[in-house]
Amino acid sequence: MLAFVARNHALTAARKPLPKLRNGWALVRVRLAGICNTDVEILRGYHSFRGTPGHEFVGEVVDVRGVSARTRNKWLGRRVVGEINIACGALGRSSACEFCRRGLKTHCARRKVLGILRHDGAFAEFLALPLENLHLVPAGVSDEQAVFAEPLAAACEILTQRRVRSFPRAAVLGDGKLAQLIAMALASAGPVVTLYGKHAGKLALARRHGIRTRRIRGDARDLERDARKASFPLVVEATGSPSGFALAIALTEPRGTLVLKSTYHGAAPIETWPVVVKEITLVGSRCGPFKEALALLRAKKVDPRPLIARTYPLAEATAAMKFAQERGVLKVLLKP
Amino acid sequence: MLAFVARNHALTAARKPLPKLRNGWALVRVRLAGICNTDVEILRGYHSFRGTPGHEFVGEVVDVRGVSARTRNKWLGRRVVGEINIACGALGRSSACEFCRRGLKTHCARRKVLGILRHDGAFAEFLALPLENLHLVPAGVSDEQAVFAEPLAAACEILTQRRVRSFPRAAVLGDGKLAQLIAMALASAGPVVTLYGKHAGKLALARRHGIRTRRIRGDARDLERDARKASFPLVVEATGSPSGFALAIALTEPRGTLVLKSTYHGAAPIETWPVVVKEITLVGSRCGPFKEALALLRAKKVDPRPLIARTYPLAEATAAMKFAQERGVLKVLLKP
Repeated sequence: MLAFVARNHALTAARKPLPKLRNGWALVRVRLAGICNTDVEILRGYHSFRGTPGHEFVGEVVDVRGVSARTRNKWLGRRVVGEINIACGALGRSSACEFCRRGLKTHCARRKVLGILRHDGAFAEFLALPLENLHLVPAGVSDEQAVFAEPLAAACEILTQRRVRSFPRAAVLGDGKLAQLIAMALASAGPVVTLYGKHAGKLALARRHGIRTRRIRGDARDLERDARKASFPLVVEATGSPSGFALAIALTEPRGTLVLKSTYHGAAPIETWPVVVKEITLVGSRCGPFKEALALLRAKKVDPRPLIARTYPLAEATAAMKFAQERGVLKVLLKP
Repeated sequence: MLAFVARNHALTAARKPLPKLRNGWALVRVRLAGICNTDVEILRGYHSFRGTPGHEFVGEVVDVRGVSARTRNKWLGRRVVGEINIACGALGRSSACEFCRRGLKTHCARRKVLGILRHDGAFAEFLALPLENLHLVPAGVSDEQAVFAEPLAAACEILTQRRVRSFPRAAVLGDGKLAQLIAMALASAGPVVTLYGKHAGKLALARRHGIRTRRIRGDARDLERDARKASFPLVVEATGSPSGFALAIALTEPRGTLVLKSTYHGAAPIETWPVVVKEITLVGSRCGPFKEALALLRAKKVDPRPLIARTYPLAEATAAMKFAQERGVLKVLLKP
């Protein structure tokens, strides 16, 4: 099959055999895959991952191994999205790790992660995942919507970590694709959401979804002025760059909550004393619940399709990845 | 009266008039004052404070203004310790700020802070505080114990922010005076506490209080090895230096809680992605409940007296402050 691999800071085409299936696993033909900032980080070498990237996808189950005929019939030919963390049980371990025993599969100590850690991902014609990771896509949800299930689930993780509807106001820092999904997910839960970003076009897009926006310029004094004017009981840092952290702390009111979503690598100079003086609670937030994400898509409470900048054929993935890194570009999709 | 002020990175003696009292305030003769790392930060100019530092004290009420005879009799001549945040009500404001209205006096938007922010502190013969800030010292608690009420209350703040007894194990990073008080306060609540520090003598002191200890060396590889060997569901960062933060994150297990207590100023290079990937909750923690601190002292659950390195006469405060900054020195007291 055609698959792409991370080599020398670019995606390179390769011919690979079909992924092998363990018992309880499914072979999925990729219908659409999304490019995420984490894929850019992988090209930069930060995850030491040399396989096939890609962890956002919608696909169709074309084979299932080692299950009953009934289970096989349930999945075969169906459209699916998939959770990306592959935990002890699905890896054929005889005993579960401490975190799996506690039900924290996304924190499995031995986990493989689709397209990120020791398991080939979605920038290919096919991928393999355990059935326990898959979710059926409801009939009313198109491929173009379903391909956002993974990042939207990550946005929904905030809703599971904090009672978001108890906050009257929230701020989201960043106007990228994840930040926009987070703003939509938060707004669906109740708070009036203000999105802080640098790109006029991206901010205009957020306003189409009923999100308030505020443009920030790179100047430190501007940021300080913004922080003096407004503060929020709930702030989400999703700029994907180190610079967002200081403004996020400044924008969070005393005893407020600051959710960290950016997973950029590399150290940034940070002053932590305001976190202590204001007694801010910071909450790291990663992968989230697919059921909630699919429910938001099905109920049309979140429509991510305006975030799609362009869809490339899989064969042009190298060019697609370059385009995805251009200024102002939001979601780029690959279609095998 | 004799008072000391922060000038040119040192404490300088000055003659000052007695502090003036508002209605509802008390004049307190200082019996003992403690030197804290925040006082060192003040000498470095970080709080832009040019008055008299000192926010840890035990004293005796010698005057009270604008209260009933009964209230006056309750306080006059009694030994007291005092909360350091002076909020709207005590400042004679006709309307309270948002945070005072919410009962968060320590976060009052207009607050003055004893010896730190716009209000003269305890490195003097006398200080003034609102009666609402004062707590009577129980008869069984000596001056040498009571002078630790403020930092011990700060340690107890962690007990109000998290259900500490639900954690089987906890780690405290740092072996300084605040870290030692935190380790004792946590241990009093239930968890088995391991204190990580660099100084053999300070670690030995902690072991006298039933705290486990682990010596860390400055080498980054040593720190990494420590973090691979052990992880904790609850970690408190109290090193008072930027270097502690990375080890604290490494020592916190997935979905664990990391309490930040250090208020050093200046930026440190920090990688925040492990907070996101491990979904750690960071909790900024500042001033705490004096009642709980006094109860721990009274019940002898915490005895801070072994932390006292030396007591200087107030007149020798300049030398005392220099001594307090020497390597390996814990609490230095001033006696007017």
